[in-house]
Amino acid sequence: MQTAINFSEKFSKFSEHWSPRVIAQMNDCHFKLVKFRGEFVWHDHKDTDEVFIVLDGEMVIHFRNCDVPVRKGEMIVIPKGVQHKTSAKTECQAMLVEAAGTVNTGDAGGDKTASTDAWI
Amino acid sequence: MQTAINFSEKFSKFSEHWSPRVIAQMNDCHFKLVKFRGEFVWHDHKDTDEVFIVLDGEMVIHFRNCDVPVRKGEMIVIPKGVQHKTSAKTECQAMLVEAAGTVNTGDAGGDKTASTDAWI
Repeated sequence: MQTAINFSEKFSKFSEHWSPRVIAQMNDCHFKLVKFRGEFVWHDHKDTDEVFIVLDGEMVIHFRNCDVPVRKGEMIVIPKGVQHKTSAKTECQAMLVEAAGTVNTGDAGGDKTASTDAWI
Repeated sequence: MQTAINFSEKFSKFSEHWSPRVIAQMNDCHFKLVKFRGEFVWHDHKDTDEVFIVLDGEMVIHFRNCDVPVRKGEMIVIPKGVQHKTSAKTECQAMLVEAAGTVNTGDAGGDKTASTDAWI
């Protein structure tokens, strides 16, 4: 039986920053929830566009040539191959939509690299 | 230059029910906003799963064997090939994510059939 997926209930299950959790799959895309604060690492995704939908708070997507604020009730599409990093002054809660298997740090690596398949 | 897409601003641009408007593309998926009230027609989508994210109000997804309420802050995945119809007692505002080109009524047809490519 199908059931609705409640974002608040899913967010209550984890507190780690920069650690996306998969909540749904549609075709070959994963829908992931993520919490973060501070600044991420520059990276890109060679094989997939990436969507951020801000569910609570505010983030900034830094591109090499501009910074774009994205607030609650807004989304942004980051085209594949475009270098970017995220930042947030206070905790931001967002949903990511991207190809299943996408690594959060692209091929930049580092200690913020997270599992691509952590379902909650 | 990339910019954020604001859902309220996009919703203010149309009032028609059952008439999804495309606001973004990610890979081969369209993100669409839709307003509706009342009851849709039974249909399925043979070639794509479909996601509903409720942004305001409440809807019910009717399946042949159960009814699933989906409220603001919740989403649901309807697997491809699964018959369903939507309903809402009062106006519901939702985001659809599905393969670009997906017809809202599947192959059921009828007067609620809308454009697959109406960008706002």
